[in-house]
Amino acid sequence: MATPELSFDIAEYKERLRKTKIRMEQEGIEVLLVTDPANMCYLSGYDGWSFYVHQMLVVFGDEEQPVWIGRKMDAKAAEFTTWLSHENILYYSDDYVQSKIKHPMDFVCDFLKEKGRANKTIGVEMDNYYFTAQCYVSLMKGLPNSRLVDATSLVNWVRVIKSDREIELMKRAAKLVEKAMQSGIDKINAGVRECDVVADIYHAEITGTEEFGGDYPAIVPLLPAGEKTSTPHITWSDNRYKEGDLVILELAGCCKRYHSPMARTVSIGKPSQRVLDLTEAVVEGINAALDAVKPGVTAEEVEAVWRSTIAKHGFVKDSRIGYSTGLNYPPDWGEHTISLRQGDKTVLQPNMTIHMIPGIWQDNYGVEISETFRVTENGCETLANFPRQLFVK
Amino acid sequence: MATPELSFDIAEYKERLRKTKIRMEQEGIEVLLVTDPANMCYLSGYDGWSFYVHQMLVVFGDEEQPVWIGRKMDAKAAEFTTWLSHENILYYSDDYVQSKIKHPMDFVCDFLKEKGRANKTIGVEMDNYYFTAQCYVSLMKGLPNSRLVDATSLVNWVRVIKSDREIELMKRAAKLVEKAMQSGIDKINAGVRECDVVADIYHAEITGTEEFGGDYPAIVPLLPAGEKTSTPHITWSDNRYKEGDLVILELAGCCKRYHSPMARTVSIGKPSQRVLDLTEAVVEGINAALDAVKPGVTAEEVEAVWRSTIAKHGFVKDSRIGYSTGLNYPPDWGEHTISLRQGDKTVLQPNMTIHMIPGIWQDNYGVEISETFRVTENGCETLANFPRQLFVK
Repeated sequence: MATPELSFDIAEYKERLRKTKIRMEQEGIEVLLVTDPANMCYLSGYDGWSFYVHQMLVVFGDEEQPVWIGRKMDAKAAEFTTWLSHENILYYSDDYVQSKIKHPMDFVCDFLKEKGRANKTIGVEMDNYYFTAQCYVSLMKGLPNSRLVDATSLVNWVRVIKSDREIELMKRAAKLVEKAMQSGIDKINAGVRECDVVADIYHAEITGTEEFGGDYPAIVPLLPAGEKTSTPHITWSDNRYKEGDLVILELAGCCKRYHSPMARTVSIGKPSQRVLDLTEAVVEGINAALDAVKPGVTAEEVEAVWRSTIAKHGFVKDSRIGYSTGLNYPPDWGEHTISLRQGDKTVLQPNMTIHMIPGIWQDNYGVEISETFRVTENGCETLANFPRQLFVK
Repeated sequence: MATPELSFDIAEYKERLRKTKIRMEQEGIEVLLVTDPANMCYLSGYDGWSFYVHQMLVVFGDEEQPVWIGRKMDAKAAEFTTWLSHENILYYSDDYVQSKIKHPMDFVCDFLKEKGRANKTIGVEMDNYYFTAQCYVSLMKGLPNSRLVDATSLVNWVRVIKSDREIELMKRAAKLVEKAMQSGIDKINAGVRECDVVADIYHAEITGTEEFGGDYPAIVPLLPAGEKTSTPHITWSDNRYKEGDLVILELAGCCKRYHSPMARTVSIGKPSQRVLDLTEAVVEGINAALDAVKPGVTAEEVEAVWRSTIAKHGFVKDSRIGYSTGLNYPPDWGEHTISLRQGDKTVLQPNMTIHMIPGIWQDNYGVEISETFRVTENGCETLANFPRQLFVK
């Protein structure tokens, strides 16, 4: 076999695993079934677009290496991308795939029974996209003597503080998003098709720089235009922009699966006063909120600064203004841990990385300007360096 | 509100809904919770990258319109993209998002209780990515008097025969994949970085033609190179190709969420005899299998033709050789209905659309050559028109 191409030293993967096992022990979990592709990659290095079939990493509290289980044709990808021994890469045959008769979790149950682990406390990622209701039911049926407990976000919380190497990859991703954002803004104009803007964005993001190329972000470019800027998650069409359109661009650069998201807003032609007023509030709000970030401050305290700043301008936002980001796979580049919102009492610590995206969506227009930042020893630094403003074409 | 931009006449959406209700009645399902984004789009038109939070379409057997339920900031996207009345678009507040305290399914339970539907037989898509174990547990807890039954693929099976308008969109997608594949093949060469090839592929796919642009495919370009061609789902890196490398390209064009996938294999420099032998077997196998397709033939019969053809060359493939495709969202462009494999007794009918991808992955190399085809009245037609061969650079 070829030597696997790892993004990190094996020691770093082992350290991640050690921290995961500590959390497992704290929660009384003896066996952890890791189905989130980002968590799988974080612990093992596994990387491939195979998460559309069931796969997992099985972490035993008392064994050195996890076990990768997936589809036969993907086992080679595990050899190419993980630090695991050949013996720890197991696969099920193709008749388990999207079948009404057999389910991949039956294979997992058989494996745990053979290992004598069928009566353990088993952690499962209950609210992860890739742990379906059927996975749960099949495990309960196949392992009646086990105790299944919720371990949603257990590994995600281990991911929340980044290593220096992770920060390095996110800074590369920030370079990619700067390039992608610039080419999008350059291309947008009245008469241009949305798809032609996105084609340039993708090209810039993926071809990257001389030193490194870009990976696929976990979310595609979000580009609402015109009245659709009143909602954030609309993708592009082949419509042509019109004079007077407002365009929101929410993009990320991605390097070795690490993201730096960023949003900006463009006005085609002179912006209306209400857009200028909203932009002023958003920029002042994000500036104040970023100024409030430092170790020891809580997530909700940062949000409160934003809230009071925009209130002075007469605006209210009833959704969270940010979330932890880093390593991820579709459908989300958010880590499902920290949210900048009321009630989130997470204490910020150095090398947490957060996408602060305080978009405001009014009835028929909206403005998004965002920054991904790293908590530093005494404040924060944004990963990208890009004018924090409304762009007028 | 702006008039929604629909890809189909409202009559077509209503016809889809009528067929869905017939299946619901056959299975004794009174209320269907549709969480698969493709199924949501199919029935309502809903389109947005919001499936990373919980959302659904609730179909009542006895009501004319389904109800969309999602996050508040996405409700506007439902207004812009669906044919549903304003009253049928409901949303939960942002504190339900990725929270440990409240789950969006609690909101759904409250809604069904208010509607007096808490004691019904409710179909849920048990093995869909976007119906997590936690969704299931929350519904069971919140609706103790209901009967939850498995409706995985219920709507997917309604999708299996395409309308003329759907075929038209898939043929556009085929034009896009032809362009993307050509630009990928043109760019590949020794010394070129993988990411630079993918940048060109994306650009071609999304900028499309003068008449229509491209949408994001549900799977990113899969581009294993060198020894990694022994496994299919590896994505690109910024490595440089070397003389002698084999490169697999599995791509799709996508138009209004409708896909036409296609795979080809490229040899950088003179291919080895074993690669030529494998290619010959794959091309002969796919030709024979396509020749066998016509209405009335079963999925497994098509696979058997492939199997016996490659056996003459001494090859065996133990995974399925194709699946139904069309409308989809990440992480899969496959429809999870028909599989071309032993045991699948689905009888082929006109306007079924299938991606026949009989890749063969050996120990340290592999070849993929695939076609997406439509079953016609007396045979089949491939959607794209692209040389069915190994490309040598």
